[in-house]
Amino acid sequence: MVNYPGGTKKTEYAKVTSSGGRGMDLEKEINRTNAYYLDTDRAVIHKKPTPVTIVKVDYPKRSAAKITEAYFKIPSTTDYNGIYRGKYLDFEAKECALNTSFPLKSVHPHQIVHLDAVLRHGALAFMIVRFTKLEETYFVEARKVIDFWNAGERRSIPYKWFAENGFLIPGNFLMPVDYLKIVDRIYFNEGG
Amino acid sequence: MVNYPGGTKKTEYAKVTSSGGRGMDLEKEINRTNAYYLDTDRAVIHKKPTPVTIVKVDYPKRSAAKITEAYFKIPSTTDYNGIYRGKYLDFEAKECALNTSFPLKSVHPHQIVHLDAVLRHGALAFMIVRFTKLEETYFVEARKVIDFWNAGERRSIPYKWFAENGFLIPGNFLMPVDYLKIVDRIYFNEGG
Repeated sequence: MVNYPGGTKKTEYAKVTSSGGRGMDLEKEINRTNAYYLDTDRAVIHKKPTPVTIVKVDYPKRSAAKITEAYFKIPSTTDYNGIYRGKYLDFEAKECALNTSFPLKSVHPHQIVHLDAVLRHGALAFMIVRFTKLEETYFVEARKVIDFWNAGERRSIPYKWFAENGFLIPGNFLMPVDYLKIVDRIYFNEGG
Repeated sequence: MVNYPGGTKKTEYAKVTSSGGRGMDLEKEINRTNAYYLDTDRAVIHKKPTPVTIVKVDYPKRSAAKITEAYFKIPSTTDYNGIYRGKYLDFEAKECALNTSFPLKSVHPHQIVHLDAVLRHGALAFMIVRFTKLEETYFVEARKVIDFWNAGERRSIPYKWFAENGFLIPGNFLMPVDYLKIVDRIYFNEGG
């Protein structure tokens, strides 16, 4: 069971690709964390809406326009961006069902190009990868993922690589995925 | 005739609210400008997808998931954001069919709250307002719009106010709405 943006409940989303449903639990937790950051005025970071190509719209009299045909679209950027401590911040989040490695095919080439572009312009850019079964959520700097991608030697990133190159993200009830703690540590040299 | 993201052509969008169709010409021109900024590696600024609440999805065998029921949603942020010269940049764009004033009801309260929040965090934040019939496109700093909004005295901003408080945005074929020229001038003191 997953909650769609807007709160409409849908079942059977397991078949949908990443833009439509997979990774929804991590997404919900990040959204909750972002809402807390926003409420406490710590950062302004939002998930972008799921990109959809709209084909048909009905206009019933005296009620809201109803989209009757639309398709999920491949995203041209990452899902999350915003501002933190005066800096542009940008990231992509993915869940991974395997224990041993993270398949690179779950990241769109557009997203790698985008992360590379924002990095060049001075962004704080990273990925959040959750190994679902292991219940471990890693923060990895975008630079490292891009370098791995560019090396082009492997189709997936081994779990071990995350343990060595990433940072485990702590969480609590209010901030289930408190990634700004890692941002503070690696970009602002705070909190050890 | 308007082009939806993804290039699907639709007629009859005049009835849809701002999130669905109105202002599409300005939107297209801004998208083209942003594409040029991106191609020339000057900035990374994208329009967010139109927010939609998805209610029903069909999964035909051997073809893409088809959304069969969805509704336009009120956006919780502005439509555009990105990074320029190392700074987080954020804006909303609106077309205005009247010659004499811009009705404030075409801006969602969420968007004003959002602009105020990103400003506090150090963003370059502004609005682009086009008076369609006059063929004039103004750049106005978010701070000024928020102050006008907070004063709460009027339900629309007079055209004259834009001429006095805003900046006319130049354009050309490659960059139909070259708003970064104004950003350079007012935030970086460049180009007179």
